[in-house]
Amino acid sequence: MDTRWAIFGTGGISAKFVSGLRHAKGAKPQLVVSRSAESGRRFAQAFGIPEVAEGYDSVTAASPFDVAYIATPPSEHARHAIACIEAGKAVLIEKPFASSVAEARRIADAARAQGVFCMEAMWTRFNPAARRLRDLIRDGAIGEVRQAHGAFCFTNKPDAANTSFDPQRGGGALAQLGVYPISLLHWLFGAPEGVEAFGRIGDTGVEEDAAISLRFAGGAVATVNTSLRALGDNGLRIGGTHGSIAFEGPIFRPYGVRVQRMAPRRKGSDTGLGRKALLREQGLPQKLSQWHGLLTRSGKVDRQLFAGNGYHYQVEEVGRCLAAGLQESPEMTLADSIAVMETMDTVRERIGGQGK
Amino acid sequence: MDTRWAIFGTGGISAKFVSGLRHAKGAKPQLVVSRSAESGRRFAQAFGIPEVAEGYDSVTAASPFDVAYIATPPSEHARHAIACIEAGKAVLIEKPFASSVAEARRIADAARAQGVFCMEAMWTRFNPAARRLRDLIRDGAIGEVRQAHGAFCFTNKPDAANTSFDPQRGGGALAQLGVYPISLLHWLFGAPEGVEAFGRIGDTGVEEDAAISLRFAGGAVATVNTSLRALGDNGLRIGGTHGSIAFEGPIFRPYGVRVQRMAPRRKGSDTGLGRKALLREQGLPQKLSQWHGLLTRSGKVDRQLFAGNGYHYQVEEVGRCLAAGLQESPEMTLADSIAVMETMDTVRERIGGQGK
Repeated sequence: MDTRWAIFGTGGISAKFVSGLRHAKGAKPQLVVSRSAESGRRFAQAFGIPEVAEGYDSVTAASPFDVAYIATPPSEHARHAIACIEAGKAVLIEKPFASSVAEARRIADAARAQGVFCMEAMWTRFNPAARRLRDLIRDGAIGEVRQAHGAFCFTNKPDAANTSFDPQRGGGALAQLGVYPISLLHWLFGAPEGVEAFGRIGDTGVEEDAAISLRFAGGAVATVNTSLRALGDNGLRIGGTHGSIAFEGPIFRPYGVRVQRMAPRRKGSDTGLGRKALLREQGLPQKLSQWHGLLTRSGKVDRQLFAGNGYHYQVEEVGRCLAAGLQESPEMTLADSIAVMETMDTVRERIGGQGK
Repeated sequence: MDTRWAIFGTGGISAKFVSGLRHAKGAKPQLVVSRSAESGRRFAQAFGIPEVAEGYDSVTAASPFDVAYIATPPSEHARHAIACIEAGKAVLIEKPFASSVAEARRIADAARAQGVFCMEAMWTRFNPAARRLRDLIRDGAIGEVRQAHGAFCFTNKPDAANTSFDPQRGGGALAQLGVYPISLLHWLFGAPEGVEAFGRIGDTGVEEDAAISLRFAGGAVATVNTSLRALGDNGLRIGGTHGSIAFEGPIFRPYGVRVQRMAPRRKGSDTGLGRKALLREQGLPQKLSQWHGLLTRSGKVDRQLFAGNGYHYQVEEVGRCLAAGLQESPEMTLADSIAVMETMDTVRERIGGQGK
């Protein structure tokens, strides 16, 4: 029998999620849970979902679903997730996992106490391009990892009525966007040993921008840019002693990786006085590289195209874990979710005093 | 009469510089000054330079040149530059300007006292793509600036015999590579108000990697990655409330800018339940964007191609300043060079305690 899903919340992210769910094997959306019956019915109709429940407190152990997908505002995650957990239901919680480390711990404790499955919906970790990137790094494709950069920035209109800009509902650039690169870096390299950041608090009281430096065990360092107000490169790139790997496509939906292998060079070897060196500086090779952007876009692309929007990978992961009787996904553990919240809290602390 | 140049040092950077000098109007290389007469002669022969002087102390007021280009190791910059300045010669000093803030101040004081022209050879500031980038930002092409990211990283073989890896001669990732993005950010936004960094000190005693966060007056924030051991994206990108501007080509030699304009969006507006939204998530538009990388490479390219390797722009700037009787270039002042050294010193202080 298919795993039956309940969708908590009828916003844009729920629409994307259910749209992705269609591509997942062994899963079907069964129930929409919404604050208002009307928006629940409209959502159910748009996606052909059989049942609608009005009010988040209406859920009981007898409700007709196996897993709840919690996509209410971050400030409500703990309340809605714990209610489901106590009803014995598995939960998949939209990122950020909660609006504070304390709430994240309460959710994790409840899931462990009840012995039910609980996972953060950091779906990028299950994307084939991300898996490929991690495998290539593990296989030594770029040598020893030294550097990383990730960004997730968009230009939005500040609006206090909007969850992203509302501190009461868990808004801010970090919770809405920065969590993607931060979580991917945690996944690849573990929790950082050092966290520093600069940022700006906007008029509605959330951090609208952040520039973050991180240091990981072993000495690799990384930077992260995130913004609710400006556009960024929105990529992920890892540099090692023998090359680099970068996502093809945006960090929130990569569809491949670009690998550039490069043997460490001896400084000065390419700056001789010979005819070849001069040609490279002044002649046709220099012109060609200008025209074609060869210097910045070289490397081999390994495309990992997928059908649909990619959200189905995390849905299938939940199905696999439930079938195996696991209470956590080994790829996205509760400890990881809490550690990511801790990193984000440290960033917010650093930014806190820096004013508007 | 053409401005006569003396070239101090015969390494790779001098070769590139003289190669670029050929494209400058009103300038000619007249003299090579080298520690060894032999390498001086070899260099002079390769580039058709008439005269050679052995030993850096052989330079006097009577030496047959107007401007000295100082490309000896950073640890020697102060000594060689001040000797020239005291002989009444103008100087162009390869970056980093000196190996400490104290030495940078001594050079600036000497130039001001003697009333001779002195400038750091941060040639990227005179590159047409960099000028275009700054003009577009000033003209409001991307709205209010919020975010920036710059990187300059390469995979080198650690080697204590190499200036880059030698702390005694002013090596390290910052001095050799990081100075490019840091200086460009100073040029665009002024000296940062806040500087934080993580990094790693290598076996030869220099910082091999750094991940830097910066905060500027007005609240814009930036990250910088630099490394002697790993490959990076090596670009420069500025994000604003109405779009972004990025270099086309590497940060050390950009040949254009890519402008992406974007009106701030209202969150949620693109995540509806309609047929169009679903198509974008699941259908052909999603597939096309995967195939063509449209999401990451959109925007309008403004190419600023140039003949030669681009070093001639700074040479012509020196000529213009000398003709106008200026002692500093308004685009690359001594105060700027000192401020950049201060930022780099702060980064090194932060990294200092972090170990290998």
